[in-house]
This record gives sequence, structure tokens and C-alpha cells, in this order.
Amino acid sequence: MTTQPRPRRAPSGAAVLREDITDSLRAAVFEELAASGYGRLSVEAVARRAGVGKTAVYRRWPSKLELVIDAVSAVAALRIPVPDTGSLLGDVQTLLKILARALRHPLAAQIVPDLLAEAARNPDIARTLEKALRDTQRDITSQVFGRAVERGELPEGAGTDLALDLLTGPLYWRLTVLRAAPTPAYLDELAATIVAALRA
Amino acid sequence: MTTQPRPRRAPSGAAVLREDITDSLRAAVFEELAASGYGRLSVEAVARRAGVGKTAVYRRWPSKLELVIDAVSAVAALRIPVPDTGSLLGDVQTLLKILARALRHPLAAQIVPDLLAEAARNPDIARTLEKALRDTQRDITSQVFGRAVERGELPEGAGTDLALDLLTGPLYWRLTVLRAAPTPAYLDELAATIVAALRA
Repeated sequence: MTTQPRPRRAPSGAAVLREDITDSLRAAVFEELAASGYGRLSVEAVARRAGVGKTAVYRRWPSKLELVIDAVSAVAALRIPVPDTGSLLGDVQTLLKILARALRHPLAAQIVPDLLAEAARNPDIARTLEKALRDTQRDITSQVFGRAVERGELPEGAGTDLALDLLTGPLYWRLTVLRAAPTPAYLDELAATIVAALRA
Repeated sequence: MTTQPRPRRAPSGAAVLREDITDSLRAAVFEELAASGYGRLSVEAVARRAGVGKTAVYRRWPSKLELVIDAVSAVAALRIPVPDTGSLLGDVQTLLKILARALRHPLAAQIVPDLLAEAARNPDIARTLEKALRDTQRDITSQVFGRAVERGELPEGAGTDLALDLLTGPLYWRLTVLRAAPTPAYLDELAATIVAALRA
């Protein structure tokens, strides 16, 4: 979520190769998750897709569960562009557009419901997913709401649970549960509702 | 969704038995779905749980997919109590409480995410689920909103897509995705937001 690139020392050749394989394995996890779902995902299929042996997986992660949790955490830590349009309404409108695009992405549209289904049975996946979602939500909204407080658009400490859920809940319901696309008018009406709820 | 009991002729002994087995099989589907998930659910396990042979399943449904779709449709057609408190705000508050209770039910908490995950891969499940959700939403809200229009609390034709999504989206997000319980203050704030959005 930070916009600062992480400073890195020049890695050795072997370290580069190790990192490349880790990245290939993480990418392969997402492709396998989208194709098969968590229940049917096998470590062998992930290794095959990444062009390595099963040992390369088990050297990094003790089991399929750790492999998936690590891949999800890595994606959640990606930098999401935080809007800075100069007004709270503009920022909320932009956030909703970014979120709608992210939820429509074929990988997200398949993998998120899948992990949520698995989370209902597996407390480790549930905790990782919750933490990833909450941290992302908190990082982005603290910047957007913080600037709105500085501009005097919001009182100090604005941002109830409900205001945060309004940002994601209706859009998630429409796109992922009803599988319908929100119209531009829908997104504008939603943005106005969120800003009103934040100011209340 | 109707409150009228369906008129029925007295069935024969064999018909009663057939209906009993159908009901047992539907119940067994839900228990197996909660325990194993759609991907791992087997027709054999459903039959075993219902105390019948596999043939009894295949005589009714050609495959696991039709079996699950039928069970889901049967639940969606159940009568949900439609509140009639005398005010729009009161009805919305009651609806939110009913919905929060339904989403917290252990079977719903496991089966709904599971079917949504399967829907991302299977258009038949997706269509059945969407239809069940939309029909239920439309039946309940048309009664609640219709009475509010009669009382002069809402203009004719109120009830945009967004207003409907506000009823379910934030609560679904909080309970099923974040796995957190909404406080009474949260539910009151949400009800006020929905009524404001309906009147806008």
C-alpha cells in the first residue's frame, strides 16, 4: 500500500533464480485457483504450471494451505492507487471505479468467492483473508479520509464501520453476488450516499 | 414468499413416501454441502445420509448439479416473514434484523459462499442463485415499499437498484466477508441510510 519502492541490495544470481521461481509459483497458484478452486487445487498442478518439481513448492511452503495464504497475502500487499482528486466526493467516486474494475477482473471474480467459501471451513484462511481485506481497506481510507479532515470536509475521527462497509458492500453484492454491472448513475448515487453517511 | 398455504389433495401412501424421501434428500444435500462444499459433494454421500440408495437420487435428478439447484430453489421459495410495523423505518429495521439472523445461520454461512464460488465457474448455478436472490429481494421489498407508498412515505416507483443493494450489501459484506457481527447502532445507522436513499 505504500507508494515508496522498497530499497533492495543487488541480489546474487542464485537469489534471483530463487525469487523468480517463487514469483512463478505464486502466479501459478492464482491460475490454478481460478481454474480449479481451492478444494480441487493440487500442489502438483501448481508445480507443473510453474515448470518446476513438487520439491520446489515444499521447500518454500509446508502445505497447500500455506502456499495459498502466502499468495493471497502477496497480492493484498500490492500497491493500490489511492485517489487524490482534491475533494472527498471525487476521491470516493474514483475509489468506487477502481473497486468495480478490480472486482470485475476474471481472476478476482473467481478467486475471491472461492477463498471466502474455503474461509467458512478453514479458520486460517478466514483470518488471513480478513486481515488482508481490513488492512487494505484501512490503509486506503485513512489516506482519503485524512485528507478530507485536513480540508475541513469531514470532522476528526470520521469513518464508522458502516461508512467503510458502504464503500465495498453494495458494489460487492451487485458485482459478485448478483453478477450485474453497476451503471454510472448507480456509482454516482452510491458515492453521494457514502459521503452523506460519512458526514452524518 | 406467499402467505397462502398451497391447496393439496390428500396424497396416496406411496406418494407420501416419495415426498418424504425427496424431502430427506433435500435436507441431506444441505448437510453435505455444509460439511464438504459443492466441489467435494458426492451423490453417494447424500444418498447415504438420507438413508436411501443412489438410485433414489438419480430417479429424481439426473446429476449432482440438478440436485443442488433444486434444493437451493426449494429453500429460496420458503416463506420469509415480511415485516409490517406501520412505518418504513420500522419495516427496514426489522428486515435488517431478519437478514442478519439468516446470514448468521451456520448453514447459510457455509453454503451461500460455497454456491457463489461454484457460480463463478458454473453458469447454471449462477443463474439459479441470481434468480432465487432477485426474486426473494423483489417479493419482500415490493410489499414493504408498496405499503410505504400507500402511507405516503415514499413516492410511486421508489426503490432503485442501489436502495435494494443497500439493504443486503453492507450486511452481507460485514457478516460473510469480514465475519464480524453488526452492533445494534450499526443496524440503526444502516436503516436510516437506506430510508434516506429511498427518499432521495
